[in-house]
Amino acid sequence: MPESTTPSTATPVTIIGLGAMGTALANAFLDAGHSTTVWNRTAARATALAARGAHHAETVTEAIAASPLVIACVLDYDAFHETLAPATDALAGRALVNLTNGTPKQARETASWAADHRIDYLDGGIMAIPPGIATPDSFILYSGPLGTFEAHRSTLEVLGAANHVGTDHGLASLHDLALLTGMYGMFAGILQAFALIDSEGIPAGDLAPMLTNWLTGMAHSVAHYAQQIDTGDYETGVVSNLAMQSAGFANLVQAGEDQGVDVGLLRPLFELMRHQVAAGYGNGDVASVIELIRREERRQPAKSPGADKITRARRP
Amino acid sequence: MPESTTPSTATPVTIIGLGAMGTALANAFLDAGHSTTVWNRTAARATALAARGAHHAETVTEAIAASPLVIACVLDYDAFHETLAPATDALAGRALVNLTNGTPKQARETASWAADHRIDYLDGGIMAIPPGIATPDSFILYSGPLGTFEAHRSTLEVLGAANHVGTDHGLASLHDLALLTGMYGMFAGILQAFALIDSEGIPAGDLAPMLTNWLTGMAHSVAHYAQQIDTGDYETGVVSNLAMQSAGFANLVQAGEDQGVDVGLLRPLFELMRHQVAAGYGNGDVASVIELIRREERRQPAKSPGADKITRARRP
Ligand SMILES: NC(=O)c1ccc[n+]([C@@H]2O[C@H](COP(=O)([O-])OP(=O)(O)OC[C@H]3O[C@@H](n4cnc5c(N)ncnc54)[C@H](OP(=O)(O)O)[C@@H]3O)[C@@H](O)[C@H]2O)c1
Ligand SMILES: NC(=O)c1ccc[n+]([C@@H]2O[C@H](COP(=O)([O-])OP(=O)(O)OC[C@H]3O[C@@H](n4cnc5c(N)ncnc54)[C@H](OP(=O)(O)O)[C@@H]3O)[C@@H](O)[C@H]2O)c1
Repeated sequence: MPESTTPSTATPVTIIGLGAMGTALANAFLDAGHSTTVWNRTAARATALAARGAHHAETVTEAIAASPLVIACVLDYDAFHETLAPATDALAGRALVNLTNGTPKQARETASWAADHRIDYLDGGIMAIPPGIATPDSFILYSGPLGTFEAHRSTLEVLGAANHVGTDHGLASLHDLALLTGMYGMFAGILQAFALIDSEGIPAGDLAPMLTNWLTGMAHSVAHYAQQIDTGDYETGVVSNLAMQSAGFANLVQAGEDQGVDVGLLRPLFELMRHQVAAGYGNGDVASVIELIRREERRQPAKSPGADKITRARRP
Repeated sequence: MPESTTPSTATPVTIIGLGAMGTALANAFLDAGHSTTVWNRTAARATALAARGAHHAETVTEAIAASPLVIACVLDYDAFHETLAPATDALAGRALVNLTNGTPKQARETASWAADHRIDYLDGGIMAIPPGIATPDSFILYSGPLGTFEAHRSTLEVLGAANHVGTDHGLASLHDLALLTGMYGMFAGILQAFALIDSEGIPAGDLAPMLTNWLTGMAHSVAHYAQQIDTGDYETGVVSNLAMQSAGFANLVQAGEDQGVDVGLLRPLFELMRHQVAAGYGNGDVASVIELIRREERRQPAKSPGADKITRARRP
């Protein structure tokens, strides 16, 4: 919201952790006119924020005491507990929003720790890089009690779209990690792609615009694969059959080998694709690979290796 | 181009191979008013095209003789040579465009085979799925003599944007495989992401819209990584340091393990990230991972493991 219309009653906020991300969060609250208190293990990282008007607390307890809403964003849950465990008395009765990356299990354990100390706890995951905070590109996932979320929603929206994904505290992390998983797959592909063209001396910058367009277009396969996975039907309407895709994949593995590039980042997918072709999924789409990696009790029984479906798989 | 304005002098075209892709190519030429001759190993796949007005040749040689421009699109280069080797006499003096997926080495070998038989050869790679052919989303990479390309450019543009990437016959395949590599990395990430949320019973369709937006946004990292790779500077202006990313990645591996999901598709990237953190790249960006996979003589010397830079790496 524009600074001029910010009510002077904007909720005071405390930020614990001033790495690249915590600093971006604190700057966003300062920009939005919130009274902002900060603390970081290495005090020097608070200097620039203090110069912009943040209150630099000397201790974690003092930082917490300054605001009804405390946001923590440190490296990991070990750092989080190391920092906040000594300050549970100060936290009691306040809202604590943990934007530190972690697992669903860690989020649920932390929720139970918070309940033991009468802390209003929300877990969260930031889907943005620091320069994206407080821009339309940023969205943040939250999970935990809806009342706590609604009470602080407008304040949290200073950071970007606020997306409550469930009352179960583990769900923000589950969604966050799933999105990061997708992203890291894409990053692995990008780096492997650059390594491949680099082997013939082509600069990454030459491929980059084409690669961005291509990935942006292909990201729309997500909806298509989601439908196949949710119905368990990998074959209806397939236009790129897995046997053909597996033959093409062999070419990219071979090209890497021909040109001295380590294709290890993509080899696991190739193995799973070949496995599915041999298992009778050769006429279907690549999405059937999920049957090999999903939780065991959720897997489809493999198609019979004797079935008609694998005619294609037998081609060299 | 609209059918009404198509000159009756449109170049006659022959399509060899009527899988999902060859059929889409033949349909596009029929739609654009070209005299279109087709051949496929399994003759039945030509029936629907013949009903739409395609000439269904009985032999490969007869198919080739019908047009100055022959386009081949079969499973792989083995199928290509098996099909066309007996027909070199018919091919002599004609343009042959091979849109079969293969390696740069295969493309170059095939170019030399074509030269031996006085065939005007272009190699190519289709960056579209069959329903995308002849839509604005389709682009096709070509490499080989510019004269041959220019002579047939307007005909080839019926299929989608025609992108000549070099006179070296291997370059279309090199770019094609690099783009496919990026795509398969993304697909691996997508399937791994769906497996993760599936472990708590969340339908893929629930995550899909968020995942598409997220990947589309993150695809813009391509330009950023390209610049880092081309300059060899992975540290300037970094907002998501590799030590932090590696800690986050550990969470997604741990979450997979906690929930019975096989995270093998992403483990190789995790190993390389951890290696780079230990090697002194912890303050830089994930793009430094390319130093571990690119062609050996193009690698940067590893940073000293004793350097300041790896302070972060020592954190658990
Ligand atoms: N940067 C991004 O692109 C991004 C995006 C989304 C989510 N995140 C998440 O945001 C969180 C912070 O990331 P960041 O980019 O700010 O990382 P960062 O720049 O590396 O900063 C790490 C922060 O954690 C603190 N810390 C580490 N160990 C600690 C300990 N034992 N006790 C107390 N504080 C400790 C550091 O304090 P010192 O200054 O004293 O070392 C620093 O404030 C992570 O969970 C990350 O996954 C980051
Ligand atoms: N579909 C896509 O999404 C897509 C996208 C870009 C590029 N491509 C590339 O386009 C090419 C064809 O793919 P597609 O999707 O059309 O595959 P497809 O539907 O599986 O069809 C394969 C084609 O290859 C023929 N073939 C296989 N082995 C042969 C042999 N030994 N001799 C003669 N013909 C043989 C098949 O003939 P039969 O009918 O007799 O089996 C059929 O015409 C591949 O190189 C693929 O990588 C496909």
